[in-house]
Amino acid sequence: MRNWGAQLGEVKAGATEIRVPYREDLTQQHGYFHGGVSATIADTACGYAAYTLAAADATVLTAEFKINMLAPARGEELIARARVVRSGKTLTVCTADVFGSVGGSETHCATMVATIMSLAGKSDR
Amino acid sequence: MRNWGAQLGEVKAGATEIRVPYREDLTQQHGYFHGGVSATIADTACGYAAYTLAAADATVLTAEFKINMLAPARGEELIARARVVRSGKTLTVCTADVFGSVGGSETHCATMVATIMSLAGKSDR
Amino acid sequence: MRNWGAQLGEVKAGATEIRVPYREDLTQQHGYFHGGVSATIADTACGYAAYTLAAADATVLTAEFKINMLAPARGEELIARARVVRSGKTLTVCTADVFGSVGGSETHCATMVATIMSLAGKSDR
Amino acid sequence: MRNWGAQLGEVKAGATEIRVPYREDLTQQHGYFHGGVSATIADTACGYAAYTLAAADATVLTAEFKINMLAPARGEELIARARVVRSGKTLTVCTADVFGSVGGSETHCATMVATIMSLAGKSDR
Repeated sequence: MRNWGAQLGEVKAGATEIRVPYREDLTQQHGYFHGGVSATIADTACGYAAYTLAAADATVLTAEFKINMLAPARGEELIARARVVRSGKTLTVCTADVFGSVGGSETHCATMVATIMSLAGKSDR
Repeated sequence: MRNWGAQLGEVKAGATEIRVPYREDLTQQHGYFHGGVSATIADTACGYAAYTLAAADATVLTAEFKINMLAPARGEELIARARVVRSGKTLTVCTADVFGSVGGSETHCATMVATIMSLAGKSDR
Repeated sequence: MRNWGAQLGEVKAGATEIRVPYREDLTQQHGYFHGGVSATIADTACGYAAYTLAAADATVLTAEFKINMLAPARGEELIARARVVRSGKTLTVCTADVFGSVGGSETHCATMVATIMSLAGKSDR
Repeated sequence: MRNWGAQLGEVKAGATEIRVPYREDLTQQHGYFHGGVSATIADTACGYAAYTLAAADATVLTAEFKINMLAPARGEELIARARVVRSGKTLTVCTADVFGSVGGSETHCATMVATIMSLAGKSDR
């Protein structure tokens, strides 16, 4: 992700944003961002969102996620915004929405629901 | 994906394989392949598997997929194997399994179910 | 569903609600509504929500759905509220949330994302 | 489920089967089994499959599942067969396939992947 130029945007308790600027090697044959890029930044945003509410000594990992593609992921920038739906001791459920930004106007291009697992006593901090 | 060194392996009617060799920039903080890499090669393998059974003048795109992470994606190579579960005129359902290969021994590290949509008259061929 | 006493609540363009009152034969061993009841009313609410935006001569059917369980489904009534996230010619993506109502106070107990397919020229109307 | 006449079929370590005979009140407007019936028996079969491998003092509950509908669920009997894909201390991933049986001939009508959570020290046994 660092290699993609992705950046963590706004971070609040239970909500995060990740932005990745357009780069030709992140696109598929039609010039849109590859679905794998949408999935990766949405998954990562969900993980960070869960992490903001996790115990101080816990790390998080993705148990599973599902993504529905809604529109072509086009634009100068791809933005994933995640929020925690339910935070549990072991499992946290998050949703993320992915938007393609063209000239400041955003198109909703994917939606994800993810289950994030907390592992106590294995902090990355 | 080309930039990742990913390669299409065996292709049969309704079944495909994609392999990507280890590369440090595809890993996360623990040295395992990033979950987004597993998702991307599994999704792509599903798309190709659906494509092998699609009408000659059709292109395919992913409507949605879900992936469950089963084990850390570690190894010299990550391998996604997909097969068509049901091929329809409009929608094709595929599953893919992802394996990490260490010294020729494979560990099952993720499983995906994907819905692939066929668009007639929009061939990429 | 009729046998369950389920009722269609508020219906707007792209949004619907289904309510089912508590009944012992809809519960599992702990006295909560069975997960299958949550899934069924959420799926049905998604189908109706998609249907409100479908072409006049179209019928709808569920291609797939995913549901995350967030809390025990307890209460005098179980309520599913669905809305269309993206309405397409062939595929419509909906989300639904399920709430258990206890004395007028609601608990969010499940969240669903569903892909609904429209079939033109096969109206149920 | 008991009210549906559903019965637990073959049970092995990590694999179970649930069968439900045709009954008019389990069908939708076209006379097929309702999607909610497929989802419910598949989910239950996954739960039992996970339970066969869980610790003796543990109970299980469904964290999430996803189901893809492949064909109309028609027949004298609907059969869900589940198996454990990966059994973990906390999370177990299962798949289930649902078949409609007509005169002994089976049609594959749905496929599920479910995440089942084990709760130690809360045995139902």
